[in-house]
Amino acid sequence: MASAPRPSEDALIARFFAPLAAAGGLGLKDDAACISPRPGHDLVVTTDALVETVHFLPGDPPDSVARKALGVNVSDLAAKGAEPVGFLLALALPEDWTESWLAAFAAGLGEAAGDFGCPLLGGDTVKAKGALTLSVTALGEVPAGRMVPRTAAKAGDILCVTGTIGDGALGLDLRGDPAWAAALDAGERDFLAARYLHPQPRHRLAAALRENARASMDVSDGLAGDLAKMMRASGVSATVDLDRVPLSPAAARAVRAEPGLIDRIVTGGDDYEILCAVPEKKLDRLRLEAEGCGIALSVIGQVVPGHGAPVFRTAAGERRYDVGSFSHF
Amino acid sequence: MASAPRPSEDALIARFFAPLAAAGGLGLKDDAACISPRPGHDLVVTTDALVETVHFLPGDPPDSVARKALGVNVSDLAAKGAEPVGFLLALALPEDWTESWLAAFAAGLGEAAGDFGCPLLGGDTVKAKGALTLSVTALGEVPAGRMVPRTAAKAGDILCVTGTIGDGALGLDLRGDPAWAAALDAGERDFLAARYLHPQPRHRLAAALRENARASMDVSDGLAGDLAKMMRASGVSATVDLDRVPLSPAAARAVRAEPGLIDRIVTGGDDYEILCAVPEKKLDRLRLEAEGCGIALSVIGQVVPGHGAPVFRTAAGERRYDVGSFSHF
Repeated sequence: MASAPRPSEDALIARFFAPLAAAGGLGLKDDAACISPRPGHDLVVTTDALVETVHFLPGDPPDSVARKALGVNVSDLAAKGAEPVGFLLALALPEDWTESWLAAFAAGLGEAAGDFGCPLLGGDTVKAKGALTLSVTALGEVPAGRMVPRTAAKAGDILCVTGTIGDGALGLDLRGDPAWAAALDAGERDFLAARYLHPQPRHRLAAALRENARASMDVSDGLAGDLAKMMRASGVSATVDLDRVPLSPAAARAVRAEPGLIDRIVTGGDDYEILCAVPEKKLDRLRLEAEGCGIALSVIGQVVPGHGAPVFRTAAGERRYDVGSFSHF
Repeated sequence: MASAPRPSEDALIARFFAPLAAAGGLGLKDDAACISPRPGHDLVVTTDALVETVHFLPGDPPDSVARKALGVNVSDLAAKGAEPVGFLLALALPEDWTESWLAAFAAGLGEAAGDFGCPLLGGDTVKAKGALTLSVTALGEVPAGRMVPRTAAKAGDILCVTGTIGDGALGLDLRGDPAWAAALDAGERDFLAARYLHPQPRHRLAAALRENARASMDVSDGLAGDLAKMMRASGVSATVDLDRVPLSPAAARAVRAEPGLIDRIVTGGDDYEILCAVPEKKLDRLRLEAEGCGIALSVIGQVVPGHGAPVFRTAAGERRYDVGSFSHF
């Protein structure tokens, strides 16, 4: 047990979290938040937990941890075509927490909540027995019946991803000082590190996905595994042109230095980009709207009939990724 | 790391949790749950985290842990006058989890979800670094604008609690084999132990609270502290007749054996009963409706003007509990 006197949970909430709370959170002075859903809308709800050493690393800046915890949940909402309504935070703090850590965490959380348009509604703060553990539950809304499912991709649909793939995984690997790091300049290394630390949810694309995508999910556990998951859930398969998987300049340079890295890029996880299946006739529209949001959108392949694992084609041949998604266990 | 092969998160969800999922949870095959709120209703959302050794003890039966994690959240909904809609679970499993533990946990969760009318909508399962940690986020609904707040008690209102107070705290203390345990028979000891393990949320009282209570909260951190919190939030104070605080036969016998235990009963926590402030003219109605639900309701005191800590009166004099709520830090 820490020997210094600690503020009570109430004092801690009043000091660090109440300033972030939206109207629905009632200033965090009640036992629950109250939301008035917009008439004719469904509520989309998702929860993701993050554990220190598993999902972020000891010593990661507290504002980064906060931003990531919220960002990965807002990313799930975005993939479902939902506009953020707000979030709840369950925070299990290890015994050696400090007020400066918590102040920086709350500041980062407030800034991320503002950036993502997803205010704090409520939460719970408890003592951890072990590593810092955070669970965020995010709520969003869609016009009734319009959530974009994972399960509705059809053969013939075009497969697209936002942004670039693999940066997060390479950013994590960089911490182990791999040989390929020497091929990158400092700016490229910083870029990859930041992509791991600060996933950028694509919430501005939510409406365009509702209008144009048949199926969608966010890529969090690796493109190959998450694509396999979406195809399986939809009862179809896919072919992907590996050369069309969008890479950042930094990731592209890393692959030139070590070509085998392409497998890590495709299976690594921590992308928090959107993977979607789009009817061909809606592709131009989605492209245009993504452009309007300043979000890059790349065609990577096509949905095909069948039930096998998706095929990734290169000039040299084909490969399938059997391992699939990162397993947490 | 465990050396035995473990099922992936997807396999684990499919096997243990998908069978519990409600329609809104889409069979847990999507990244988010989708809820269609009833027109003219607000959504009430609450989250509570439980950590092994802090909120339950190693060796507690897994079905009890599951029931408690859901029960404490449904208790919050009940206090707000909300009917359960469903819940999400974020589960951080330590490395030594076993399939038999998880099977029993899922079975208990399913049973509790049925008992409380609060189905599983979604969740996340991750690897813990340290003790088992669970966060439940529960959603409920109330007719628009009708959530029962913590902040609206008025001088003159009658203070009531459901059930009996102090059983949970004594049930926890029993594990340390205190001297007073000898005064109880085995049935009484079992009763108190079960009250700690299995809080009974008063969800059936939700509608009656909406109709009749001005302010309400659930007693989780000790009656004295939670009452002080509700009075402070409402800008009033309270007087309580300590002799009218309802005790179970087991708790009453413990107090006869060791009179000082009354302070533990009033400050101990883990009650998960409802504390509410009721306008005098609505008291009979609330009593009647509680009786109709099979829930005991006791008048314990009155809301009074002022800002001091609530006063607990006994034949011998008055006492105030300065410590207030259990502090988690």
